[in-house]
Amino acid sequence: MHPNLIEYIKRYVSITEAEIAIFQTYLHSKKIKKKEFLLKEGQFCKSRYFIIKGCVRLFHFDNKGNEQIIHFGIDNWWITEYESLINQIPSQLNIQAVENTELLELPEAYFDELCEKVPIIERLFRKIMEKTYIAIQKRIEYIYSLSGEEQFRFFIDANPEFTQRVPQYMIASYLGMSPEFVSKVKAKIK
Amino acid sequence: MHPNLIEYIKRYVSITEAEIAIFQTYLHSKKIKKKEFLLKEGQFCKSRYFIIKGCVRLFHFDNKGNEQIIHFGIDNWWITEYESLINQIPSQLNIQAVENTELLELPEAYFDELCEKVPIIERLFRKIMEKTYIAIQKRIEYIYSLSGEEQFRFFIDANPEFTQRVPQYMIASYLGMSPEFVSKVKAKIK
Repeated sequence: MHPNLIEYIKRYVSITEAEIAIFQTYLHSKKIKKKEFLLKEGQFCKSRYFIIKGCVRLFHFDNKGNEQIIHFGIDNWWITEYESLINQIPSQLNIQAVENTELLELPEAYFDELCEKVPIIERLFRKIMEKTYIAIQKRIEYIYSLSGEEQFRFFIDANPEFTQRVPQYMIASYLGMSPEFVSKVKAKIK
Repeated sequence: MHPNLIEYIKRYVSITEAEIAIFQTYLHSKKIKKKEFLLKEGQFCKSRYFIIKGCVRLFHFDNKGNEQIIHFGIDNWWITEYESLINQIPSQLNIQAVENTELLELPEAYFDELCEKVPIIERLFRKIMEKTYIAIQKRIEYIYSLSGEEQFRFFIDANPEFTQRVPQYMIASYLGMSPEFVSKVKAKIK
């Protein structure tokens, strides 16, 4: 198994070499090029993905036809479109590579089987979901309690890597701001 | 075990009578009166709670001193403050009863032990977290893609019970709107 994923797992649970070896047999390597889609609106999301290296964005088009980025995934993050994956419905979101991206794909069709063979994986994903939930709840708090400028400052302080790697107009879209507003705030910060 | 919780569990996983009986031994009944706090800012959140009947709200005060409701919990929902519970840090949020509320308390100190005895509980909570995450991600989508009026209409269509049970100023706070704005939209709808 890729050392990044082993290290990641061990941050959440205790796992044996034998369990890692079984987990490994359920994972497939995948590479997508910058701008390539991992999932398109209308398709069924059938896997969870661990990003070894790269960056992807989950986005949809709002009713005015504007791209709205829901979230990003970067090195050492799991990414998927949960609504499509769990409810087995067509995805309303797209997942597209922002950079050339190397992933490990964990097909949902074998997820329960894997958890039965290696029960600690169930705990791993329960804990991942809890952390992911904490992060998104914080985001709701900030949307309502911080000004646009404060939100932008907070985002770049908390995610310095994104600010280097992701085009500014995408960060603006993620934060629900216009690119012009973000430019103005950036100029002010400098 | 309370029939509401049994029914709830069976929506997510297959569970035996024997497993339910063990789960039951980890749960404690709790009643809180309207306006009573289940958790106050600064305290450590130490349990997950299943609401049998009633309504609670999770809120904090923003930096202008305004109450911001992060979310509600109502009959047949699990509620907790995940950041405090999982990271074992003082809570930044309050949990307070909006109505007299009957709960089942599942102390986190015994959660791992319960999951070891009844592994299906781990799956149950993984699945609950996934559903909860889907709901909060939808909320982010709506915040950015719908107008205030559309958000309010969507909320009352999706949650008709809340609209009956929760004071209007709390719904306004949850949606990040002023009570005056919500009154105006409600008048328009009528």
